[in-house]
Amino acid sequence: MDTKNVVIVGATGAVGKAMIKCLDNLEFPVGNLRLVASERSKGKVVKTSFGEITLETISDEVFESSDIALFSAGGDISREWRDRVVAADCLMIDNSSAFRYEYDVPLVVPEINPDAAREHNGVIANPNCTTAIAAVVLWPLHEAFGLKKVIISTYQATSGAGAKGMQELLDQTRDVLEESEGNPLKVSKCHVEPRAFAHPIAFNIIPHIDKFQKNGYTKEEMKVTWETHKIFGDDSIAVSCTAVRIPTLRAHSESIVIETEKSVSVDEAREVLEDSDGVKVVDNPDDELYPMPLEASGKSGVRVGRIRQNIVFGENGLEFFISGDQLLKGAALNAVQIAKLFV
Amino acid sequence: MDTKNVVIVGATGAVGKAMIKCLDNLEFPVGNLRLVASERSKGKVVKTSFGEITLETISDEVFESSDIALFSAGGDISREWRDRVVAADCLMIDNSSAFRYEYDVPLVVPEINPDAAREHNGVIANPNCTTAIAAVVLWPLHEAFGLKKVIISTYQATSGAGAKGMQELLDQTRDVLEESEGNPLKVSKCHVEPRAFAHPIAFNIIPHIDKFQKNGYTKEEMKVTWETHKIFGDDSIAVSCTAVRIPTLRAHSESIVIETEKSVSVDEAREVLEDSDGVKVVDNPDDELYPMPLEASGKSGVRVGRIRQNIVFGENGLEFFISGDQLLKGAALNAVQIAKLFV
Repeated sequence: MDTKNVVIVGATGAVGKAMIKCLDNLEFPVGNLRLVASERSKGKVVKTSFGEITLETISDEVFESSDIALFSAGGDISREWRDRVVAADCLMIDNSSAFRYEYDVPLVVPEINPDAAREHNGVIANPNCTTAIAAVVLWPLHEAFGLKKVIISTYQATSGAGAKGMQELLDQTRDVLEESEGNPLKVSKCHVEPRAFAHPIAFNIIPHIDKFQKNGYTKEEMKVTWETHKIFGDDSIAVSCTAVRIPTLRAHSESIVIETEKSVSVDEAREVLEDSDGVKVVDNPDDELYPMPLEASGKSGVRVGRIRQNIVFGENGLEFFISGDQLLKGAALNAVQIAKLFV
Repeated sequence: MDTKNVVIVGATGAVGKAMIKCLDNLEFPVGNLRLVASERSKGKVVKTSFGEITLETISDEVFESSDIALFSAGGDISREWRDRVVAADCLMIDNSSAFRYEYDVPLVVPEINPDAAREHNGVIANPNCTTAIAAVVLWPLHEAFGLKKVIISTYQATSGAGAKGMQELLDQTRDVLEESEGNPLKVSKCHVEPRAFAHPIAFNIIPHIDKFQKNGYTKEEMKVTWETHKIFGDDSIAVSCTAVRIPTLRAHSESIVIETEKSVSVDEAREVLEDSDGVKVVDNPDDELYPMPLEASGKSGVRVGRIRQNIVFGENGLEFFISGDQLLKGAALNAVQIAKLFV
């Protein structure tokens, strides 16, 4: 089998680390793997299943010797290096939101629109995590029943803000437990200094992810609308989202209500979802089985459960709950799946 | 001013304790206050703003000497004592779900249907916490614009399972922090023994509150539909809910999308809500102000923010986020407000 030389830009971040694991788990035929990090990490050695690799800083030479570059170092780095990566004839798969809405940059979820990936001009965008997790569940339902309306409320883990988000939750929680001496009534009076988030996240939730837009939605919320349209190639579906940060570590959850063109039953929907790639039906209330972030952490399939006929939309309505590891399907896994389309 | 003799049944629970505070905060004209608890607590002395009160066990005599009984000791106790409380000519205001759906038991939120309270036959029911918090915000919008559809996803605190729910979250969180040594990757592998909830709640969420019904909704979710209809006196409104337990201590939050009969703008909605009793508009994204459970804890008004025109329903649609202390408006405060209607 042909091998590909791969470089990961942002290799020490939460997503970068997950990318290394995904290359292994998906048996990606890695020729040479190079790991790019910041000046601060240069020279450190990382143990991987592809051997010990020395972290290096970004350079043209890295891309000249690589076939595929997985970028997860923020939009600014992606924007700064795009032209040089493309000039080096290295395929750029970018996890930032920098190019997602450009006309000639495909936005790809391999279970949904793998063909779009072929039309790239050197850059393929990886979708927003919340969108990707919802999309693998919504797409088969769209194909089978036709989506008219999608109403989402999210329960997003601190890992969405990277390793520093997870650390802030753990540190803050420990501080609050100490200061409150385990007294529930004292918790809301504890003093904590938020850094990664706008407000305290320990024992709190924050209905604010990314910047506010003029229409009152946040950019995170609008990404779900914009990106679902682009990935599905259909902007007639009405999609709205409320995005909420909650005190969990990893795996996002979403409560989703849909209205469909055709009538839909719970049994039909379950059958469709059980046959879908990237989806795992976890839906047995009698045994208290339903998606939960702790159970979804580290797993590749997006969990879907609590599937029921929605009261509001009746026989053209369905309601369900999903949990998916946003570092995997929401980021690293999807990026490596895109790369695999080119093997 | 006339005084009323009051008895609180379940005085040592989270709601019972909040009831004592609410009687004081609302300047309820308490004549004699008696506190009923379990055999185990009998004889203990509780310091209140009405003096030191000795806990006693339940008896006919307690109700014979009281004008109003605030019950918050679970549905079984309420059912067992109902006839004797009524026979003693003591008005029973019951926080359990035991009688809420009986035809001749008014279900009351004083900001919405105070007149219904007058039609009691000895018992008045206090609504479910999630319903009550949503109802004070939905009612003025219903009066102004007419509600057609209401789609809710909740973020419910562990206090919904009483003091033991809050303690379980704190204890479990401390155990997980110790066992994982603050390593985010180890958290999902920690072993915890759930008691108050079906699954671990530390750094997790559980889309399951109360028992599952045949239609796939939980009883908690159906309560929101049933009780909104009864309180509003209008069962033509389509209401659906997904109820999720999250690792917070106190104050429930809800993400709500509505479709209205009349067109509605954000400015009109805000004006209506700012004029509404029991509601506090906290909605200034530029200053990162929006409802959050940590901020809503211990406050009487239900916070509403993130008010925006909903993309899916267009000019007849609105979307917003609410947080309210479910031990207060969702339980103790509403019960004492009902009692005040009879002063």
